[in-house]
Amino acid sequence: MIITLKKGAKQKEITIVTDKIKSLGYKPHISKGKDITIIGMIGEYAEKYKDVFEAMDVVEHISEIQKPYKLASREFKKENTVIKISRNVEIGGKKIHVMAGPCAIESKELMFNTAKIIKEAGATIIRGGAFKPRSSPYAFQGLGEKGLKYIEEASEKLRMPTVSEAMTIEQVDLLSKYCDIIQIGARNVQNYDLLKAAGKQNKPVLLKRGMATTVKELLLSAEYILSQGNYNVMLCERGIRTFEDSTRFTMDLNAVPVLKKLTHLPIILDPSHGIGIREHVGTMAKACVAVGADGLIIEVHPCPQEALSDGPQSLLPDQFETLMKELDLIAKAIGRELLD
Amino acid sequence: MIITLKKGAKQKEITIVTDKIKSLGYKPHISKGKDITIIGMIGEYAEKYKDVFEAMDVVEHISEIQKPYKLASREFKKENTVIKISRNVEIGGKKIHVMAGPCAIESKELMFNTAKIIKEAGATIIRGGAFKPRSSPYAFQGLGEKGLKYIEEASEKLRMPTVSEAMTIEQVDLLSKYCDIIQIGARNVQNYDLLKAAGKQNKPVLLKRGMATTVKELLLSAEYILSQGNYNVMLCERGIRTFEDSTRFTMDLNAVPVLKKLTHLPIILDPSHGIGIREHVGTMAKACVAVGADGLIIEVHPCPQEALSDGPQSLLPDQFETLMKELDLIAKAIGRELLD
Amino acid sequence: MIITLKKGAKQKEITIVTDKIKSLGYKPHISKGKDITIIGMIGEYAEKYKDVFEAMDVVEHISEIQKPYKLASREFKKENTVIKISRNVEIGGKKIHVMAGPCAIESKELMFNTAKIIKEAGATIIRGGAFKPRSSPYAFQGLGEKGLKYIEEASEKLRMPTVSEAMTIEQVDLLSKYCDIIQIGARNVQNYDLLKAAGKQNKPVLLKRGMATTVKELLLSAEYILSQGNYNVMLCERGIRTFEDSTRFTMDLNAVPVLKKLTHLPIILDPSHGIGIREHVGTMAKACVAVGADGLIIEVHPCPQEALSDGPQSLLPDQFETLMKELDLIAKAIGRELLD
Amino acid sequence: MIITLKKGAKQKEITIVTDKIKSLGYKPHISKGKDITIIGMIGEYAEKYKDVFEAMDVVEHISEIQKPYKLASREFKKENTVIKISRNVEIGGKKIHVMAGPCAIESKELMFNTAKIIKEAGATIIRGGAFKPRSSPYAFQGLGEKGLKYIEEASEKLRMPTVSEAMTIEQVDLLSKYCDIIQIGARNVQNYDLLKAAGKQNKPVLLKRGMATTVKELLLSAEYILSQGNYNVMLCERGIRTFEDSTRFTMDLNAVPVLKKLTHLPIILDPSHGIGIREHVGTMAKACVAVGADGLIIEVHPCPQEALSDGPQSLLPDQFETLMKELDLIAKAIGRELLD
Repeated sequence: MIITLKKGAKQKEITIVTDKIKSLGYKPHISKGKDITIIGMIGEYAEKYKDVFEAMDVVEHISEIQKPYKLASREFKKENTVIKISRNVEIGGKKIHVMAGPCAIESKELMFNTAKIIKEAGATIIRGGAFKPRSSPYAFQGLGEKGLKYIEEASEKLRMPTVSEAMTIEQVDLLSKYCDIIQIGARNVQNYDLLKAAGKQNKPVLLKRGMATTVKELLLSAEYILSQGNYNVMLCERGIRTFEDSTRFTMDLNAVPVLKKLTHLPIILDPSHGIGIREHVGTMAKACVAVGADGLIIEVHPCPQEALSDGPQSLLPDQFETLMKELDLIAKAIGRELLD
Repeated sequence: MIITLKKGAKQKEITIVTDKIKSLGYKPHISKGKDITIIGMIGEYAEKYKDVFEAMDVVEHISEIQKPYKLASREFKKENTVIKISRNVEIGGKKIHVMAGPCAIESKELMFNTAKIIKEAGATIIRGGAFKPRSSPYAFQGLGEKGLKYIEEASEKLRMPTVSEAMTIEQVDLLSKYCDIIQIGARNVQNYDLLKAAGKQNKPVLLKRGMATTVKELLLSAEYILSQGNYNVMLCERGIRTFEDSTRFTMDLNAVPVLKKLTHLPIILDPSHGIGIREHVGTMAKACVAVGADGLIIEVHPCPQEALSDGPQSLLPDQFETLMKELDLIAKAIGRELLD
Repeated sequence: MIITLKKGAKQKEITIVTDKIKSLGYKPHISKGKDITIIGMIGEYAEKYKDVFEAMDVVEHISEIQKPYKLASREFKKENTVIKISRNVEIGGKKIHVMAGPCAIESKELMFNTAKIIKEAGATIIRGGAFKPRSSPYAFQGLGEKGLKYIEEASEKLRMPTVSEAMTIEQVDLLSKYCDIIQIGARNVQNYDLLKAAGKQNKPVLLKRGMATTVKELLLSAEYILSQGNYNVMLCERGIRTFEDSTRFTMDLNAVPVLKKLTHLPIILDPSHGIGIREHVGTMAKACVAVGADGLIIEVHPCPQEALSDGPQSLLPDQFETLMKELDLIAKAIGRELLD
Repeated sequence: MIITLKKGAKQKEITIVTDKIKSLGYKPHISKGKDITIIGMIGEYAEKYKDVFEAMDVVEHISEIQKPYKLASREFKKENTVIKISRNVEIGGKKIHVMAGPCAIESKELMFNTAKIIKEAGATIIRGGAFKPRSSPYAFQGLGEKGLKYIEEASEKLRMPTVSEAMTIEQVDLLSKYCDIIQIGARNVQNYDLLKAAGKQNKPVLLKRGMATTVKELLLSAEYILSQGNYNVMLCERGIRTFEDSTRFTMDLNAVPVLKKLTHLPIILDPSHGIGIREHVGTMAKACVAVGADGLIIEVHPCPQEALSDGPQSLLPDQFETLMKELDLIAKAIGRELLD
């Protein structure tokens, strides 16, 4: 952490800063120029005291040197994390995995039929929500545990692992019994007690970036999970909120190379939410593969206009089937694979 | 809800839409132009089926007529809601109330001394966090229940009501014993189970807008609380996230007249987080009073560089005292009052 | 255009609206529900009168039906526009063209050497700025006409067409003598007199989206050029401004499928500005090809730390050469081509 | 400028950086920690070489110390700039001036009548556009020089100075003959040749912030004008573009105290564009006065539904008259004045 003092800072003021640094157990490095005094405070977690120095009137500017997260960083772990989901499914390696299914689990039949369709098309993980975060209290909120039973049944019959979202600490416990991956949704990305709960159980976690979460904050949220002992975290970009209103969100693909540089965790992309318009989901999925995603999560519904949520962005079965073949070609063009 | 069909929609496609409207228990109003067919679906909560029609390929555009929230709307309740916090404190009337105190409760002495200072300056409600949402897992997370005991003690000695933040359902229960107002923070504005929990107890709730929450979504989040039976909800604007990086957030004062038009609920403003720079908090507080806030929430700390969180934006006691007198003058200029 | 009136609108107020519609030469379509009255005003350019009705107190909401641009729309021209730049270069067809070169033309040698390098790597168009928009008045502003002579010379020797930016009406005239494509930069996307000037000459125009320009506004800016008679316009996404600060801009690839649906004009993508970090430009370029770009514009500089502008985002020659081969593989995977 | 090198930078790499600093005529200050090497490059305009060092692979991060603008900064000129517009009108002093009038000059009568109304209500400067930046090429573009004659005539009859917008270099020359203040609009805030033209004539300039312009970039744009010798520049905040869509723009009042700290130039606020909804303009105008504006610019139109542009945000004459009295009370409450 580098602390730049205001022009003309007096020796007395400089001493207040350096004394504070010493009292926190660090060693100050002073560099005095003609006009400007710069003080280095370097050491593990120095950045967590940023507030203390920013609160001092003599401080002009603070620049962070070390990252405020540790376990999530490439410095901590150089090689990519590969997460074993089930016997056949490992995320973070050469193969790009596709998670697919309806937004919400609506019935046993729907769940099973959709899972069958997406398996045949080449997807390897079933998605489906039993607890749905809906902006309106009057909208369909999900089937709850009943839905989890349906997705578990489909999982067993088709031998495919599953992912579903937890919105509360209790739901984390429940989901860890029924599903293979626990999703923390965009709206809960800074629900720190939920993150801690996800970190205390041992199922892999799919952590979605919030609509206004910076890359740095996303990594700090991941750090909450990792710091509880669960190292199997996947990060998911699903669109951020910007001024552009012709799409539901703005998908931030820039975040992929940036994250890949900063962290060893696998990156999943969600083009369904990222653009929110069915006919364009496939095009964005292609860009997601090309940019280096380790996995995709895509909404598929056999009858979108009957869907109880997110119908407008769900692919039809035949659209999904065609798309998977196209994605595989791109995966191969960049030296990876998507279909077996 | 007005459904505009794509140019050249066929009669068969029109019938699919109108049949669906009927099957949901509404009556379609068809208006056929030369090129364009428009179908009205008007009635309570028609808007909650927006997804269903958006998912149909023949639909070009849907425009909402009725608001998707009800209890929070001015249509539902014309006159301003006035919330009785304690014997002397009512929010939503002529008097503008100021809630003040440190970001986090750090010690019994700090809590009491700060509360005493802000009371003398004219504040009427003590603020202080026992559970702190911090982006880093390594930063100070609050004193927990011990902190609540300190704020309760200050409250009793000084006869001032209090406000503190709950981040989990359990904390809602705990806070409803110790405090007078339960705050739901910006990061939990769409934590729907937490909102429901806040709606099931009867202490007033201060609901903060998230950094990427639209005005409409904020009202829907309030609706979650109201729909559980708790009508005492205050909405709080505390800065949204934009491209501008010279301030911590961008305070959206436009939202005040817009909200006042749409809802009967009181509006609180938080200039401390809204700008995040101590020397500018007072200037923004003046704008907050002029724009029609029913209350302000301001961070005050006797020694900001010792603060364990948000030091850079906390006012010093004498700054706060001077500010309160200045705010009172503006309050009077717009026909309200702030000091007795 | 559909005009929804406020609840309880009186017959007198309805008549004011319908009379106004008639006085503008349109026919009103009235649809009266129990509570709500909706009035359709449909016809060419009805949308340009939106302001008039929005200014009426009785109007609750206006929803646009027809697009406010015409010549740029797919409705006006179904098939993709293919723009002939030179004998061998056509943009908008199967082949994806890459425009490359330094941000600014710095010397005759640099221009020629860089052009030679990028030609060998497979680029087909030379880029280089003679007039540079710089946020600081004290930064290097470009070589002006002298720079244009250098780029023209490289163009003639290597038989490659060129693109360069015009910032004023005079520069449009000058550039149309020296270059093959005239670029209008992001900061001038709503400099309407400049757009008109570009529309009055006959060299193809590369129109860059501004950092806060919506897709709709970009098409309206293109319409300014088209409406003057120049139909050879390429649209270029180069990153929009959002809250994310780990990259220079946020590249909005969602805009590509959305634009392809709305317009027949070719789409060019600029990953150099879109992410602004050299080591990540190549990764984003891959996503740009996969998402359907008709062309890319990439900054290449033999010695970026000597560059007088935009050094941090310029590729080194060997990076560019490797990238071109990788991009060609992705182009083929989606049924297009990039290298011959 | 402080250059932080990557962990483990070698002596050879350090020397490349320090040699470069010396070759640019600066003196490097090296501070070597255990892991990290920091190099200071301090001196006038060092920041303009930021790109050069960012382009070096060994550089981790650069932090600016000095501001990249000079003439616009408080360091350059401590006291507030007061701009004399006419015999009675000085902007930047105790009195807050209100500029008012229609968005566009539509006819001689409209211009004169509106000017008379706003003068009687206490406004001191007439606004009106002769050249209108419209996003659609098919919308009304302004009366041109004829409009300037109308506003000049109103100015002479009522003895009030005037402000109008220039969109091209030629219009700057024309406006400097007819008007007292030349406005550079939001869309042209980085049209650098236009800024230079405004800096070469001697009428005061009202420079509007763009919808995605940072505070720092706005000051750099002002520096373009100042550096040509015209020191009479007013900065105008008029709303930035964010995700919030319930208002036309998001008014960034945070920018006022931030700008007041950084610059000596007067600050004007435009609540009409800043919120874009007639019934809320007055409320925001109150906040604008309270936050410390030196002037306001407000759209007033005797018959907004007949207005050829921006009708929905224009105040009616009686609304404006009432508002002026209310604003005066707030001005007095903060120790300033608005009405005589």
